[in-house]
Amino acid sequence: MNPENLLTVLFVTGLIVEAMTGAISAGKKQMDLFGVLVVANVTAFGGGVVRDLLLDRYPILFIGEPKFLLMTSVCAIVMVIIARYFARLRWIFLSLDALGMITFSIVGAIRALDMGFGIAVASLTGMVTGVFGGIMRDILCNEIPLAFRTELYASVSIFSVWFYLILRHLETPESLSVPFTLAAGFILRILAVKYDWHMPKFVYQSGPLDRNH
Amino acid sequence: MNPENLLTVLFVTGLIVEAMTGAISAGKKQMDLFGVLVVANVTAFGGGVVRDLLLDRYPILFIGEPKFLLMTSVCAIVMVIIARYFARLRWIFLSLDALGMITFSIVGAIRALDMGFGIAVASLTGMVTGVFGGIMRDILCNEIPLAFRTELYASVSIFSVWFYLILRHLETPESLSVPFTLAAGFILRILAVKYDWHMPKFVYQSGPLDRNH
Amino acid sequence: MNPENLLTVLFVTGLIVEAMTGAISAGKKQMDLFGVLVVANVTAFGGGVVRDLLLDRYPILFIGEPKFLLMTSVCAIVMVIIARYFARLRWIFLSLDALGMITFSIVGAIRALDMGFGIAVASLTGMVTGVFGGIMRDILCNEIPLAFRTELYASVSIFSVWFYLILRHLETPESLSVPFTLAAGFILRILAVKYDWHMPKFVYQSGPLDRNH
Repeated sequence: MNPENLLTVLFVTGLIVEAMTGAISAGKKQMDLFGVLVVANVTAFGGGVVRDLLLDRYPILFIGEPKFLLMTSVCAIVMVIIARYFARLRWIFLSLDALGMITFSIVGAIRALDMGFGIAVASLTGMVTGVFGGIMRDILCNEIPLAFRTELYASVSIFSVWFYLILRHLETPESLSVPFTLAAGFILRILAVKYDWHMPKFVYQSGPLDRNH
Repeated sequence: MNPENLLTVLFVTGLIVEAMTGAISAGKKQMDLFGVLVVANVTAFGGGVVRDLLLDRYPILFIGEPKFLLMTSVCAIVMVIIARYFARLRWIFLSLDALGMITFSIVGAIRALDMGFGIAVASLTGMVTGVFGGIMRDILCNEIPLAFRTELYASVSIFSVWFYLILRHLETPESLSVPFTLAAGFILRILAVKYDWHMPKFVYQSGPLDRNH
Repeated sequence: MNPENLLTVLFVTGLIVEAMTGAISAGKKQMDLFGVLVVANVTAFGGGVVRDLLLDRYPILFIGEPKFLLMTSVCAIVMVIIARYFARLRWIFLSLDALGMITFSIVGAIRALDMGFGIAVASLTGMVTGVFGGIMRDILCNEIPLAFRTELYASVSIFSVWFYLILRHLETPESLSVPFTLAAGFILRILAVKYDWHMPKFVYQSGPLDRNH
């Protein structure tokens, strides 16, 4: 499979898996079918929409190609039906989610580079594309975003973007840089979950600055 | 009244009613006057803003015509004053809200069709215009969006958009398709409230997928 | 210092102070380092981003000049380290925050005027630039926005915008209008905090309108 095709396959996988995580989050809040569809699609497309709005990049993916929206919506509904049978598939799900997130991060960085932006902006848009869908999902579900508190997740996104940018800077062909980045990011993510690695937490007790905003 | 005028009257009514629902939501959270104004205007204009950002359609309504913003702000303040006398007007309020939401849905679909998009995008922008103002209101008020859990509401938006698109496809003149859509959507909404119709809920118990994001 | 330089210095100060308030809010929710960085930067840049999206004004500040993003990120991390020593600095912090917010409000109004919009739009974009970063911070932290409930804050933003617009209308040179606006807004804000001035609150008890949305 050439790297372009690989990226496309993983990107579509990422959309589907992100939509499914959104459906599950909606189910935890006992939302109805409409809520499931909105949360699922915001999770799948939200990061890319924020990136495109920041870059003034049109058309937005699902406006230009509404078939993606149909695909994620169908998958969200399927998830609603099959969720109860999912008990033993945690690691499959976690693995696909990691691959999807890393793919989103690479794609987000490429989008900015293609528009002529430098690596600072590409780092930002890579991370935004990889992580902001999940942040918006958690806001819709009235939760503090998981990405702000969980095992390395956003950090894996940023690590993957920089890993890819360094390989690209070294003029590694895409047929190597994309699979290498996926492998490196994937291993980091799986290790983080397995050994419960976290970023340091910042705990600020209520105190004299409380009334500042 | 010709259909263009009818749509305009209903659209303005919708803005006002949505602003009033926003003011009431703010009041439930004991917000101050500024909070009331922000929540009211986000509720009234939020759906249209999200649609226009997704479609790259400028100027945003209240930037091009700030008088609408003045109108909704005045109505929100009036609502603060008169809310206590509103006890017996629930059905009037509910009816105006339904008409406003259906109008937003029709207008949202027309905007996309006017820009040359197909029915998939028009369905999406119709629903976004009809429902996302209320979703943003609930996020600002730190609640899980009502549209995800209540009697048929978003479903009425989607139903109205498709009803209108089918009439339009059948080349029904606007002077008939707009009133027919309003009537059909309105009846569905009122029946849903009266008989407490809901979309099926998706309840996912905390389980083995919990730590996925 | 000429007014252009003064505005720039205060604008950069505002970005830094807003980033620091975001870092503290994230710390109260025990977020990790990534959460701190996202919340800090959304707080610092969020108001300007919303304004630019509404006005279709590109490039967004930190896309065009990513060095600002680096600066606020470094300051957020510094804040994490020094927060514990901040106990006696409440009034310094509060004062800088007020100056930053008033500066954002003036800059937000100027941006719209520079694009040819009238005072209605300039009032709106001034207030959005001044206050929406903090609103987005509070949404990310799953709180009802402070700006909707606290001592005069958003009101000081609007007051400052109008004060500035009136001075500008009177053809006061910028070298006077900017410092005067800063002084007037600052005094109002400090008095509001000291004497606990509030906007009137709108308290709506749960009642017959509850099921409207």
